[in-house]
Amino acid sequence: MAEVTLTVCTTCRRIAGGEPVADEPRPGARLYEALTQADLPDNVQLKPVECLSACSRGCSIALTGGPARWTYVYGDMDPDTQVDEILTGLRAYAQTSDGIVPWRERPQAFRKQSIARIPPQE
Amino acid sequence: MAEVTLTVCTTCRRIAGGEPVADEPRPGARLYEALTQADLPDNVQLKPVECLSACSRGCSIALTGGPARWTYVYGDMDPDTQVDEILTGLRAYAQTSDGIVPWRERPQAFRKQSIARIPPQE
Repeated sequence: MAEVTLTVCTTCRRIAGGEPVADEPRPGARLYEALTQADLPDNVQLKPVECLSACSRGCSIALTGGPARWTYVYGDMDPDTQVDEILTGLRAYAQTSDGIVPWRERPQAFRKQSIARIPPQE
Repeated sequence: MAEVTLTVCTTCRRIAGGEPVADEPRPGARLYEALTQADLPDNVQLKPVECLSACSRGCSIALTGGPARWTYVYGDMDPDTQVDEILTGLRAYAQTSDGIVPWRERPQAFRKQSIARIPPQE
């Protein structure tokens, strides 16, 4: 099964009142750091990126997995409370061949904080 | 050079006051129809899709182009006024190997209406 990549924007800041909050550590970087400590499935790699162009929805992450899987982009992630949910959703995604996890099996963060999904390229 | 796909959500409705406008033809379907009439580069295919999960930003489109190119998702597209801009941006994207079009060469719709971008998978 193709490699899965969890891409995390490490530049992302928390959004409050529609504006990025500048006077605190970047939650995107903290989220990435927390995920590096996690036990990831063998076919998953974690990758930091400088910008996913979803800055109004930070922290943002993307799940990709080769030409046969749908790509998903999620935003408004909270590094303090949602790491476990991200890992649950990531593990479920990594077990699929097409990237589609049944709705009921998706963690709430993935159900409610979707930014976009992109069809498989093959 | 790898094939490029322009994916158009044909379910998308226009958003007004934060809500989808139901009592008019779907602008996503109209946008797709308008693009089928256009003269596309040889390495570009046009693909309708039922949902890009960017429903609050309809019409939405995605540009993909194999494992070496960045993927881009754009929203709030206007089928009445932005078809030419979409085609300009699409042609520029199709000419790159990595999907990155210099900022100044991007049409305004692509500069201002970006929803997300996803790094190349290779």
